[in-house]
Amino acid sequence: MPILAGLSEEMKASRPLADIQVGICLHVEPKTAVLCQVLVDAGAEVVITGSPGTTKDPVAESLRATGVTVYGCAADDAVAHKTNIASVMSHRPQVILDNGADLAACAARQGVSIVGGTEETTTGANRLREELSGDVPFPVIVINDSPLKAIVENQHGVGQTVVEGFMRTTNLLIPRRKFAVIGYGWCGRGIARYLKSYGGDVVVVDTDEIRALEAALDGFEVRGLDAAAPWSDVLITVTGRPDIVRREHLESMKDGAILANAGHFSWEIDLAGVARHPVKEGVERLDVAGGKRLYLLASGEMLNLAGGGGNPIETMDLGLSLQALSLARVAQSTDALVTGPQPVPDDINRDVARRMLAALSG
Amino acid sequence: MPILAGLSEEMKASRPLADIQVGICLHVEPKTAVLCQVLVDAGAEVVITGSPGTTKDPVAESLRATGVTVYGCAADDAVAHKTNIASVMSHRPQVILDNGADLAACAARQGVSIVGGTEETTTGANRLREELSGDVPFPVIVINDSPLKAIVENQHGVGQTVVEGFMRTTNLLIPRRKFAVIGYGWCGRGIARYLKSYGGDVVVVDTDEIRALEAALDGFEVRGLDAAAPWSDVLITVTGRPDIVRREHLESMKDGAILANAGHFSWEIDLAGVARHPVKEGVERLDVAGGKRLYLLASGEMLNLAGGGGNPIETMDLGLSLQALSLARVAQSTDALVTGPQPVPDDINRDVARRMLAALSG
Amino acid sequence: MPILAGLSEEMKASRPLADIQVGICLHVEPKTAVLCQVLVDAGAEVVITGSPGTTKDPVAESLRATGVTVYGCAADDAVAHKTNIASVMSHRPQVILDNGADLAACAARQGVSIVGGTEETTTGANRLREELSGDVPFPVIVINDSPLKAIVENQHGVGQTVVEGFMRTTNLLIPRRKFAVIGYGWCGRGIARYLKSYGGDVVVVDTDEIRALEAALDGFEVRGLDAAAPWSDVLITVTGRPDIVRREHLESMKDGAILANAGHFSWEIDLAGVARHPVKEGVERLDVAGGKRLYLLASGEMLNLAGGGGNPIETMDLGLSLQALSLARVAQSTDALVTGPQPVPDDINRDVARRMLAALSG
Amino acid sequence: MPILAGLSEEMKASRPLADIQVGICLHVEPKTAVLCQVLVDAGAEVVITGSPGTTKDPVAESLRATGVTVYGCAADDAVAHKTNIASVMSHRPQVILDNGADLAACAARQGVSIVGGTEETTTGANRLREELSGDVPFPVIVINDSPLKAIVENQHGVGQTVVEGFMRTTNLLIPRRKFAVIGYGWCGRGIARYLKSYGGDVVVVDTDEIRALEAALDGFEVRGLDAAAPWSDVLITVTGRPDIVRREHLESMKDGAILANAGHFSWEIDLAGVARHPVKEGVERLDVAGGKRLYLLASGEMLNLAGGGGNPIETMDLGLSLQALSLARVAQSTDALVTGPQPVPDDINRDVARRMLAALSG
Repeated sequence: MPILAGLSEEMKASRPLADIQVGICLHVEPKTAVLCQVLVDAGAEVVITGSPGTTKDPVAESLRATGVTVYGCAADDAVAHKTNIASVMSHRPQVILDNGADLAACAARQGVSIVGGTEETTTGANRLREELSGDVPFPVIVINDSPLKAIVENQHGVGQTVVEGFMRTTNLLIPRRKFAVIGYGWCGRGIARYLKSYGGDVVVVDTDEIRALEAALDGFEVRGLDAAAPWSDVLITVTGRPDIVRREHLESMKDGAILANAGHFSWEIDLAGVARHPVKEGVERLDVAGGKRLYLLASGEMLNLAGGGGNPIETMDLGLSLQALSLARVAQSTDALVTGPQPVPDDINRDVARRMLAALSG
Repeated sequence: MPILAGLSEEMKASRPLADIQVGICLHVEPKTAVLCQVLVDAGAEVVITGSPGTTKDPVAESLRATGVTVYGCAADDAVAHKTNIASVMSHRPQVILDNGADLAACAARQGVSIVGGTEETTTGANRLREELSGDVPFPVIVINDSPLKAIVENQHGVGQTVVEGFMRTTNLLIPRRKFAVIGYGWCGRGIARYLKSYGGDVVVVDTDEIRALEAALDGFEVRGLDAAAPWSDVLITVTGRPDIVRREHLESMKDGAILANAGHFSWEIDLAGVARHPVKEGVERLDVAGGKRLYLLASGEMLNLAGGGGNPIETMDLGLSLQALSLARVAQSTDALVTGPQPVPDDINRDVARRMLAALSG
Repeated sequence: MPILAGLSEEMKASRPLADIQVGICLHVEPKTAVLCQVLVDAGAEVVITGSPGTTKDPVAESLRATGVTVYGCAADDAVAHKTNIASVMSHRPQVILDNGADLAACAARQGVSIVGGTEETTTGANRLREELSGDVPFPVIVINDSPLKAIVENQHGVGQTVVEGFMRTTNLLIPRRKFAVIGYGWCGRGIARYLKSYGGDVVVVDTDEIRALEAALDGFEVRGLDAAAPWSDVLITVTGRPDIVRREHLESMKDGAILANAGHFSWEIDLAGVARHPVKEGVERLDVAGGKRLYLLASGEMLNLAGGGGNPIETMDLGLSLQALSLARVAQSTDALVTGPQPVPDDINRDVARRMLAALSG
Repeated sequence: MPILAGLSEEMKASRPLADIQVGICLHVEPKTAVLCQVLVDAGAEVVITGSPGTTKDPVAESLRATGVTVYGCAADDAVAHKTNIASVMSHRPQVILDNGADLAACAARQGVSIVGGTEETTTGANRLREELSGDVPFPVIVINDSPLKAIVENQHGVGQTVVEGFMRTTNLLIPRRKFAVIGYGWCGRGIARYLKSYGGDVVVVDTDEIRALEAALDGFEVRGLDAAAPWSDVLITVTGRPDIVRREHLESMKDGAILANAGHFSWEIDLAGVARHPVKEGVERLDVAGGKRLYLLASGEMLNLAGGGGNPIETMDLGLSLQALSLARVAQSTDALVTGPQPVPDDINRDVARRMLAALSG
């Protein structure tokens, strides 16, 4: 992770978090440990808890060995998680790094004063805007909404690794295979583009006319889902919305066709009432009306994560670097920041883009 | 022009401009004549003038034969143009189709009451926003700012035809040739992409870090202009800004290197004081310090227009269709429109996108 | 495997191997079992042995259940293999399907009369031409030399799965990464092309000037190995020849650079005397002079097999179908065949190409 | 023409044609003049004539000014041409550079003794092998059959310039347009590839199953001509054979579809009895049964030559360089050459490939 490594060197010298108490809620796993180390090197006192069930105990142990306070363990359930959050907040952190707004919600409940924080997820940002609206009297920089994530992670990271996940789970050649990509957002255009660059016969489905026209001029055939489903050998959803592929679409598909999802939730394909039979790792057979067999990859979970190696390292490097710089900003100068959830400051985006460009030119 | 042809059929039946007086300022050339015919078929009374020097007299003649009132001729100068504008306005048009805000300025001066209008150019839109700010008490839909134009005309139309213009003026193969594309906006990414798809070795220059990172992830090497200029065999500017390539860049280039511009104005390459010698059609030799010879394509004017066949027909079809629907909207329901310059209404963009998709699927 | 499935249906009806004794030496694994079933359905009596150590006992068991005679088991060593070969030959097969010319060598030694056979590998074909030259008085069709394998397996199958293996072992993004592909044969051009289609910065190395020029016109930068090695982030060999990347090249590479091989043998990178340390699955660290660390993927074995999911199913379908048709040809009409090793008959290649095209158009 | 320029420098020093009389039959046009100059610089006495009607008189004049003997003028007909050929041969050239075997035929008739020569065209090579078989007791190197021409000129040169010719004659966008490319030889695969890289929807037709399979794995849909013709918006022939597209295919096409040819002769589309009406430069309207209108580009002549700027300069540089080196070889060492027509010696191909690579790396 060259960007984070460079930041770490700089922050060791400049110590932008000197004597700042940082409270963190984030999966306690190796990459998080790297971020914690950067924050510690930047001068912070770090106290962290994970999410229910995701804490890796050896990582927690090694973090403790470096002076980080860690609450929780792999066995924690939702109740234990709540206690852990309270424990983190009991350290009176000046700055928080949040995941799903759990720390912010606790601070709001307790009326604890916080200088500011960051939030990893769009879900957390929505919670801040809705459920916690008005209760968060400090700035929270939302990392996931950075345009850099759309470019690096969604378009290219997801695009390349979804193709990898398809090859890994199926061991099939791509040329001339008929792929229907449902959704031409950032992820969808990455997937469509990389499949086509491999010789796939790619049809794009998007109900937004402007995106559909973009897809056409990018060289893709555009169809409605009703026409794309029975045509496709492989149908991949990536719309972000539920119940896009429904019973009637499944029944219209060819015997032997393959289904996968690359959207955040597995809800895009409605599998209610469909019999599922494991075939091999990452592949289930679906029996649909009329004796047709369809094949579902990675249980309908994100194909690149559940069926492949997950997002490339570069996307972590990017995300963690945005976190480190945004936390330092919050700690040092909240003047330029408004109250509540907000995008990553433009100059931080540009700084990280410049660093990533330098790393790519290595 | 299948979109416009389809619209024409529909408007013949629905007659959305029945008995509306439409005043037009637009180059009087064949494609304009087609638009006029659509407006006449839609029920309009049309009165038109061109811009100084661009009127094609035979087209004017044929328009008159169909009942359109035409002012001006090929020989017109700026003074005559002003008179022509006034003549058009003397017809008291309810609706205007403007180019550079000439009709709107006249209406403002005369205090003439207008229902609304359209403006073809971004230049005209800027004039409405600045010089004429507050003086245009009616809605003006700005055609050139439609996202469809960015997609269809800028990225793909300009992208493909700039490559065509390069091949036409130079008769050179593209594989492994070193191209520096300066500017990674809509046009620049189209040019870079099509050159690369032809095997060109393409370096992108953009001072905007986010765009530069996009270019890198799209597979392009990114450099600063200082490094790209001496490396390149061919340097193409498309930034929209003046004096990007300056004397020091020219002097750093390789003997025999080629320069071209694809931006709207020829000002991007500063040629002040550089000796220019015609070599063959579309190619001039530039003598720069140190005895180096550079080659300038199409006099530094837009390479696809001045050195090639110009924008593809599809971009005209798109632009004229946006004009026809926007004029009908202005004539029929200004309620949903604000006063002053404004984007093409979203539903019109979507309608035209849908029509273009249908035409592409033909 | 749609081609083989179609052939199986046809051969069940036409029974081209009716009452023919077929002796087979081929890895006893699931795909071989499928081929055996096709041969049995075509009327053959099948007797088979594997290669030392590659026999999967459950597959052997299931083959026996269908009436196939199987010699050998997973525990076999070279001595046991020799006995197994003799056992197969003791059945007096009229037709043999050979792997490495083991059956043919036995037949030559014993002076057994054989109608004809097929040979899977180029290695076996070379053995027939050299060591066994003059001792094989019957036609042997060499499957691996079919132009279809070059197209389907080498260019596209290997090309796509090497990229998959790279992503799987490294979890790295491809755009702008610097790849040196050493060798621009069928495999090399597939690898280079797919890496480039993913945005990789690909340099091709080939000492053959014609191939190098092809690479350049295909859009790749061409360099010598001495220049490519220190430039590359990732160096992939696929030349088919030994000791291409030598100590001096390794020492010239960047700290942190990655090495992989996609050629048949792991001999292309000379690792003699280089310290190797496992890092994670599929990745070893190499310590070279000057404290540099390089990373070797898949132990230098074929990256797509040892580091990824292996060749796509379509390439097996192709190879087994060529086997089935070639065996039937040998059994039915040796008149058109010469004695000794020879290419797959042109009409069989065309027949299989036609069947594969039909399958791709599905 | 950097390769030829480099050769010229070397030959000025080494003078491989010192005092050799070189007789040439080749179109007298600017590029030929450049070649003549190289030969003169290499020490040759040059005498030249053109083909009927292709001599450009100013070029002839300027050649004469440099000491070259030129026979013929622009006004020459077939009879005059015959006399010119005889005039060239009357100089008793030791070495000939031939076009269509006209000089060789004259030498055979007259029994003139020649050391050896080159032949530009495949047509001339065929004449040497057939009509003149046995009558040419000297080596003739056939330039057009060099594998370099297939790579540089056919695949890339023709591929790129056919797309340019299409854009120039039609001014149409390429994305999603339906192109049928008939023939997947070197030219056809270049055309198909470049059209696809521009977003075209490309179907390939080839009756050779192996080529068809290659096309499919290269990502193209493959169809028969009967299915491709009615589907296509644009049909391009490049098979090298006559009467591929026949009346029934024309009548099956869509109203408004476009036809073009990129093969050497215009005979691939059978237009016998079809009414043709000029529309604009490079476009004719064809009226076929049922009131359908088709559009023929460049009169059915090679689209890149007759409708565009012709082959790129690099292909001339390549061809003329092969000529210069082959002539020097014939003059200096015929020992390694057999009698009669033969391919360019392998080492000359490799030498020129190396020089072109160096030029591309510039």
